[in-house]
Amino acid sequence: MRHIAESTVRRLSLYLRVLESFSARGLATISSDELAREGGTTSAQVRKDLSFFGSFGKRGMGYSVPELSTRLREILGLGREWKVWIVGAGKIGAALAQYRGFRQRGFTVVAVYDNDPRLIGKSWDGHKVRDIARLERDAAADRPDIVVLAVPAEQAQPVVDRIVAAGIGAILNFAPAQLHVPRGVTLKSVNMAMELEGLSFLLTNRDA
Amino acid sequence: MRHIAESTVRRLSLYLRVLESFSARGLATISSDELAREGGTTSAQVRKDLSFFGSFGKRGMGYSVPELSTRLREILGLGREWKVWIVGAGKIGAALAQYRGFRQRGFTVVAVYDNDPRLIGKSWDGHKVRDIARLERDAAADRPDIVVLAVPAEQAQPVVDRIVAAGIGAILNFAPAQLHVPRGVTLKSVNMAMELEGLSFLLTNRDA
Repeated sequence: MRHIAESTVRRLSLYLRVLESFSARGLATISSDELAREGGTTSAQVRKDLSFFGSFGKRGMGYSVPELSTRLREILGLGREWKVWIVGAGKIGAALAQYRGFRQRGFTVVAVYDNDPRLIGKSWDGHKVRDIARLERDAAADRPDIVVLAVPAEQAQPVVDRIVAAGIGAILNFAPAQLHVPRGVTLKSVNMAMELEGLSFLLTNRDA
Repeated sequence: MRHIAESTVRRLSLYLRVLESFSARGLATISSDELAREGGTTSAQVRKDLSFFGSFGKRGMGYSVPELSTRLREILGLGREWKVWIVGAGKIGAALAQYRGFRQRGFTVVAVYDNDPRLIGKSWDGHKVRDIARLERDAAADRPDIVVLAVPAEQAQPVVDRIVAAGIGAILNFAPAQLHVPRGVTLKSVNMAMELEGLSFLLTNRDA
């Protein structure tokens, strides 16, 4: 497959959400204009994004809501269950472990880890917090697809190295640290402070 | 100012982090190669990104770490304090209210709001959770710059409408909802499930 930019994938996720809200309202078709308006982009961009993945829709008829939804779910890899571990049972980890939006999308949290004896063994939403010392052994048994990493910045790289060595191929990182992974391992970072910097940039420059 | 893409702003934040780690190691200059390597991009991209904002560095000499840091902080609007409200005192709101990375960047949480009587009045990290009924009155007095929104999806749009009507110009949204704001109001959304979808896309398509 051709390289698809992260921003394109993000818009596909957004289009899927728009389609789902149309579906909930009982609408069977949607135009690229409607997808664009709700998704905050242009109809030309919608057509370009979708053209990466084959031809959808008919000129003047719009797109079939159920067909395009199904296809986008396939493209985004949402047709199956993904096993997710949360590593780091602090405030952010706790919030993520209980986030309903994950399960709705097929992301099932199967375990939560920490190294703090005060947290290990505590029960969270049906998950007993496990000792991170077990990470390697459990990975061989559980075979998680994705680790959501929510440990303090200074612990992040050593934990990532263990996750990678344990054969887990995808990490969603919430630690405010630059992390390095070998080729073949997929790493995405969400940095809350960087999101706010995006806003302060816009606020600072919008009147310039 | 020319329109600067969100992805460019994100890289500027990343470069600033690289510069800070160089500074902490006592290094006075940095090459575009080093910025690129640590920032996960190419040196051509680094030079292009920085060229938007004037000329930096000397050919063959690299960039001055303190000068470029100062300039990036100015560009990103980090030379001042931003007053932040957290609206929604659930798990995610709680995690964000106590996130150290915000304060380090000049984002000061000045108040936390909720509509749940069980939460109102509780103390969090020095903030008493305020009743959201006070939002309009307090906005006139506090003049917050940014609202971090962490309410349930179905409550998000009505709360956003109140925030906008109260004259607050920037919102960082964590609710998994499509929100609409009038022109002149800046809205950024962080959707945890969409971040995971970015990973499932990559996992699904990497061997294709």
